[in-house]
Amino acid sequence: MIIVTTLPDLRAARLLLPGPVGLVPTMGYLHAGHISLVQAARSQCASVAASIFVNPAQFGPKEDLTTYPRNLPRDLALLEAAGVDLVWTPTVEVMYPSGFQTWVDVDGLTRLLEGEVRPGHFRGVTTVVAKLFNTVQPHKAYFGQKDAQQAAVIRRMTKDLDFPVEIFVCPTLREADGLAMSSRNTYLNPEERQAALVVFRALTAAKAAYDSGDHTAEKLCSIVGETVAAEPLARLQYVSCADYDTLEELEMVRGKTLLSMAVFVGKTRLIDNFVFG
Amino acid sequence: MIIVTTLPDLRAARLLLPGPVGLVPTMGYLHAGHISLVQAARSQCASVAASIFVNPAQFGPKEDLTTYPRNLPRDLALLEAAGVDLVWTPTVEVMYPSGFQTWVDVDGLTRLLEGEVRPGHFRGVTTVVAKLFNTVQPHKAYFGQKDAQQAAVIRRMTKDLDFPVEIFVCPTLREADGLAMSSRNTYLNPEERQAALVVFRALTAAKAAYDSGDHTAEKLCSIVGETVAAEPLARLQYVSCADYDTLEELEMVRGKTLLSMAVFVGKTRLIDNFVFG
Repeated sequence: MIIVTTLPDLRAARLLLPGPVGLVPTMGYLHAGHISLVQAARSQCASVAASIFVNPAQFGPKEDLTTYPRNLPRDLALLEAAGVDLVWTPTVEVMYPSGFQTWVDVDGLTRLLEGEVRPGHFRGVTTVVAKLFNTVQPHKAYFGQKDAQQAAVIRRMTKDLDFPVEIFVCPTLREADGLAMSSRNTYLNPEERQAALVVFRALTAAKAAYDSGDHTAEKLCSIVGETVAAEPLARLQYVSCADYDTLEELEMVRGKTLLSMAVFVGKTRLIDNFVFG
Repeated sequence: MIIVTTLPDLRAARLLLPGPVGLVPTMGYLHAGHISLVQAARSQCASVAASIFVNPAQFGPKEDLTTYPRNLPRDLALLEAAGVDLVWTPTVEVMYPSGFQTWVDVDGLTRLLEGEVRPGHFRGVTTVVAKLFNTVQPHKAYFGQKDAQQAAVIRRMTKDLDFPVEIFVCPTLREADGLAMSSRNTYLNPEERQAALVVFRALTAAKAAYDSGDHTAEKLCSIVGETVAAEPLARLQYVSCADYDTLEELEMVRGKTLLSMAVFVGKTRLIDNFVFG
């Protein structure tokens, strides 16, 4: 496995990778969800590249950039064990050198849900992903379904700007008790960790209602709301029942539909979703 | 010469081009300036691609999108004669299909000069050029020095987003009497065509002052202003003496410096510039 931290080294190393090349972009502090993306890439590509970069541009001024968990040696060992060929782990100065002033922005999709409560977040995501596409030049790129809106935004950007990259969205991996894997789960104390299960419980309850024939957004969202309300340590930030691609709110589940939610458990913000239809 | 109008055809044709590939992006209605870009590409690249696309996204609501001159058959004949291998000439619907919502924006550079009087113009330019880079995938791309700020903005975007493309800026071509070649010159009636010479006269007068030792921005700009003021059919929109790359206004010519101006002659807007230092 080759590890590169400068642009010239990345370009040189990329030239040596047989195609197709798969890219798994990450912010590090890897868990089994990330590794499942590497495995998907491994199964479809001749070479697999991963990036590790905690991207300041996608954090708001009051968000957790400085405390975001990091462990590069462990991440590198996990990627090597998973069969990654190339790791791109630039510094902030390499990614955003002095004078940097170009941004990629998806207009409509990013104003909703996560974008509404995290203004500027997706502009940071799309800009860094565009840079990763231009430097790593992958044929395929892999993202997790847990960040459903991020996946929708990146699909949109890739299509709109004609990036020659195929986007794959892989299933959310969960702990044995249902909590969606996330690097931010490390923020939860034991009591909060227990309370965080309300997210999966809420989505599962909505799924049960859906399976028993209730397909109205109002009902599914209110089940989520009531479930979260019953957990004293949790506070619902939003729940949404929306079209999988456009994220337009729906009245009824119709075609591929995303039931998504954000919850604060203590000071930790968690997101999760189920796809219906 | 292969002419393609759909994305799948472009991708297929691109695969057959030996590299390095040079790209000359145009809005058509070609003149000798465009052809000089093709010649530069021809001399440096194994294959030359040109695009012809009147890009609605870079026209303001009150600008000349509908009247912009077009002549595709003539353009194709000129490109073929100049040795172009591939022409990409998509419709607006192919370039901006329904649901399109992603924009590339250079922040600081585009707020000045042309950007100040043509808000949104450069966002349209950078977005379409990003799309051209992703579809044509050139190794080198060629732009004219006449659109000096456009060239600076594209150099910035290419660097910031890590596009693997080398940008070349080629000298402005001029008519025998000094008028910078531009597709928009066709708007000028004979009287205006004569009056338009004031632009070259103004820049030449400033250059003479520079050559005789006057390097202050104030002096060079006031020479331009006074020269234009003496021409009844012309109205100066701006004159600027700025750093060639950052476009920051300077007090003195210092390093590579851009003396640029925009003038209305009748209803026709003309831009031109000289580079000093």
